[in-house]
Amino acid sequence: MKPKTPKESLSIHTQIVLPNDTNTLGNLFGGKLLQWMDMAASISAHRHCRRIVVTASVNNVSFNNPINHASLVTLEAKVSRAFNTSMEVFIDVWVEDAVSGAKEKCNEAIYTFVAVDQNGSPLPVPALIPETEEEKTRYEAALRRKQLSLILAGKLNPHEATELKALFQ
Amino acid sequence: MKPKTPKESLSIHTQIVLPNDTNTLGNLFGGKLLQWMDMAASISAHRHCRRIVVTASVNNVSFNNPINHASLVTLEAKVSRAFNTSMEVFIDVWVEDAVSGAKEKCNEAIYTFVAVDQNGSPLPVPALIPETEEEKTRYEAALRRKQLSLILAGKLNPHEATELKALFQ
Amino acid sequence: MKPKTPKESLSIHTQIVLPNDTNTLGNLFGGKLLQWMDMAASISAHRHCRRIVVTASVNNVSFNNPINHASLVTLEAKVSRAFNTSMEVFIDVWVEDAVSGAKEKCNEAIYTFVAVDQNGSPLPVPALIPETEEEKTRYEAALRRKQLSLILAGKLNPHEATELKALFQ
Amino acid sequence: MKPKTPKESLSIHTQIVLPNDTNTLGNLFGGKLLQWMDMAASISAHRHCRRIVVTASVNNVSFNNPINHASLVTLEAKVSRAFNTSMEVFIDVWVEDAVSGAKEKCNEAIYTFVAVDQNGSPLPVPALIPETEEEKTRYEAALRRKQLSLILAGKLNPHEATELKALFQ
Amino acid sequence: MKPKTPKESLSIHTQIVLPNDTNTLGNLFGGKLLQWMDMAASISAHRHCRRIVVTASVNNVSFNNPINHASLVTLEAKVSRAFNTSMEVFIDVWVEDAVSGAKEKCNEAIYTFVAVDQNGSPLPVPALIPETEEEKTRYEAALRRKQLSLILAGKLNPHEATELKALFQ
Amino acid sequence: MKPKTPKESLSIHTQIVLPNDTNTLGNLFGGKLLQWMDMAASISAHRHCRRIVVTASVNNVSFNNPINHASLVTLEAKVSRAFNTSMEVFIDVWVEDAVSGAKEKCNEAIYTFVAVDQNGSPLPVPALIPETEEEKTRYEAALRRKQLSLILAGKLNPHEATELKALFQ
Repeated sequence: MKPKTPKESLSIHTQIVLPNDTNTLGNLFGGKLLQWMDMAASISAHRHCRRIVVTASVNNVSFNNPINHASLVTLEAKVSRAFNTSMEVFIDVWVEDAVSGAKEKCNEAIYTFVAVDQNGSPLPVPALIPETEEEKTRYEAALRRKQLSLILAGKLNPHEATELKALFQ
Repeated sequence: MKPKTPKESLSIHTQIVLPNDTNTLGNLFGGKLLQWMDMAASISAHRHCRRIVVTASVNNVSFNNPINHASLVTLEAKVSRAFNTSMEVFIDVWVEDAVSGAKEKCNEAIYTFVAVDQNGSPLPVPALIPETEEEKTRYEAALRRKQLSLILAGKLNPHEATELKALFQ
Repeated sequence: MKPKTPKESLSIHTQIVLPNDTNTLGNLFGGKLLQWMDMAASISAHRHCRRIVVTASVNNVSFNNPINHASLVTLEAKVSRAFNTSMEVFIDVWVEDAVSGAKEKCNEAIYTFVAVDQNGSPLPVPALIPETEEEKTRYEAALRRKQLSLILAGKLNPHEATELKALFQ
Repeated sequence: MKPKTPKESLSIHTQIVLPNDTNTLGNLFGGKLLQWMDMAASISAHRHCRRIVVTASVNNVSFNNPINHASLVTLEAKVSRAFNTSMEVFIDVWVEDAVSGAKEKCNEAIYTFVAVDQNGSPLPVPALIPETEEEKTRYEAALRRKQLSLILAGKLNPHEATELKALFQ
Repeated sequence: MKPKTPKESLSIHTQIVLPNDTNTLGNLFGGKLLQWMDMAASISAHRHCRRIVVTASVNNVSFNNPINHASLVTLEAKVSRAFNTSMEVFIDVWVEDAVSGAKEKCNEAIYTFVAVDQNGSPLPVPALIPETEEEKTRYEAALRRKQLSLILAGKLNPHEATELKALFQ
Repeated sequence: MKPKTPKESLSIHTQIVLPNDTNTLGNLFGGKLLQWMDMAASISAHRHCRRIVVTASVNNVSFNNPINHASLVTLEAKVSRAFNTSMEVFIDVWVEDAVSGAKEKCNEAIYTFVAVDQNGSPLPVPALIPETEEEKTRYEAALRRKQLSLILAGKLNPHEATELKALFQ
């Protein structure tokens, strides 16, 4: 399979926060944003491998700033690293200032997807070749995140997680 | 504030997977389950502190088994540890066998919520006193997860994360 | 078929009233609550018989107190009596005080479900053995409600409705 | 207040049954139909009194025939009797044959609404003057249904329910 | 095929504008009204030909007056002209004054539908015989609209559009 | 006000067609696509003028090819011409081949929006300077469309519609 670059899997989604998307403070519901991010990220993963993809895990979503009712929200998702049958996807979430149009970053999330056939069995995916500095940084860190995820799932001995271990030494 | 036990924050939700909740394989959409878990977990966090709560982060959600259309899904959320103004919540997801009624666990997720006032400023929450063995195990691990989350956010030096560091030694 | 107790069919659902669930007074829409009750009650009926169930009728739902936007609503459904192929289900609806957590009952509803096969033909269901005082009272009254329902549908002569007739003598 | 006729409150709604409206047999969900009936009936009650109306109770909804996916469903709601501050509304539900266009009745339901001011306090409503034979029959029966409802709620002594008592003698 | 009159295809829909249907000014979203009109118009087209119908085009929808939250909106759709395999449908949108009940027209739209078989191939539809003055006017104008639509799609030479050309001479 | 280019108002939306978005043939509902286009186009118009915008009219939407369930649909909206207080927006709709990723155009639509203040009164918008050939062609044609729209609304005498008249001579 021919390797691909992150920009080939870029998926962009712009949404307006409607009344039904808000919590009792009038801000965007965390659960709604999680759903939008899953949709954007799954399209990105699909574009990387051109297969059916299913969400394998969600890692490290943080909600730093509340997003107000009527905000213009843009989600940009790109594959950050491909493994054998799985892909890590980064989702950057931006809010656009209504008057100046300036975009401010308000969220960052990482999802993992697996490519599957019609029976749900995993399928191999193309490799990823990062291009920009940010893409390279995320690509490197993806391996540490995968090790951490395997440790947390009890599938990897912490002492074998070389890249992750280095963080604490 | 009087400490509380996990069972005081138990929140139960049963859902049937409808056509609109499914992906193109006819299974429950990852994004939909993320939204249901956010709802169940936020009610649990609210019951612990009796304040408005907002989602602060999602940690470590894994989707092990696909959940079929028409499945009976039960989400059980309980606070696993309380910090100053934040609460970690565990969500266990069960699928019920249609004929025998036997429940099988299919997902586990951890969300973090912050208690806030009407302006969104953080408010202190009661301590948590775990009771069962599982509750105690989750309570202990929560500290390591918090350290990890602070490191990933660049707010804690890995060498100061005593509990987490121990994992790799 | 082995008889079952009401608690074996208990189905619990907690919901937060969101903007889209409200009428023009800012309270929970009657129609929305009717839909939630149908969902909770059908899961309860399913748990009693482990068959596909379809709503046969709705009896006597009263909306005593308005339920405000952002309320925490809990529905508890339990089978109250089983007949040959049908089950009567009681749904108790509670609203939780945001600060004290005290639950106040705000609605009570009775639905009837029929167990069916894939072609929609009725199937026999297990008997119900009530345990608590409330369960026994509801079990007794269910027969009078069934007689009333048959009379209203023109399928029973009022003079043969012994239990119901007794009410007026 | 000037009395009104039932046809002045007629409210008509035609819907196509979409995938998301169906249960696991591919038929219209009972809960969805209950919500549509509540919407149609509340518009009818509003047209009778030109006030905000809230659902007070649901009486005697029976689901005789399953309604298939993609069916054309028409709901017709008309006020059947007005009391001091409340209105009983009949909803007739029809399914239209796709080829011949012949309408077949598949459901009948009775809802009760109360007219309220902005604070939710009851307001008087105009009297109803039935015109057709069916409207007159429903108007007569409405009184017996109201007595029954008061008895069930413990607000009327069965012996005082003259019209209803006559049914059993 | 027996010709039909416009009133045989009349389709009526009454809706209350709920919070989730509104834009940031608290008025009905244009996109929501477009969806409601498509639904009403497709039922009308279906009633004319008793076939599956798909939207072929939307012509000339204008949104003159904003429709407020909580408004009572009535859509009335009727076929205005039938061609070989397509039908033009007029949708009139009325808002009802909450107190007086007076209806005011707030929108008018024209959609075109095509009758198709299960494979999506076009099928012939009955002719339309307009009855009222308004129906006759709309029927005449439909031909000019069809010519205009064919010109805009590059399928008709402007000089051959006799009826439309007359407008400019 | 500083004039803007079309690419400054580009708004991109990618969607997967889910079960609830489909008609009885399993294809995307026309009404759903109309709603998505309205959302994409209104964001584009907002980006051009940085004001609240409301849909003024829909012109000339044609649905050439059915869009299947599970398709990946991309909407791209750009302002095509600005008038005093209104903006014409073009929406191009593409479907992406699941395997090759090749995009095929399946729809084209034109919407018009008006910039308004909080009371709904029109506000002036910046001029538009088209750059590409396609943008220039659409810019030119927009004037003819505006004349046509004014004629159809009875606000312009056909003989004064110079650009449009030229089409028929």
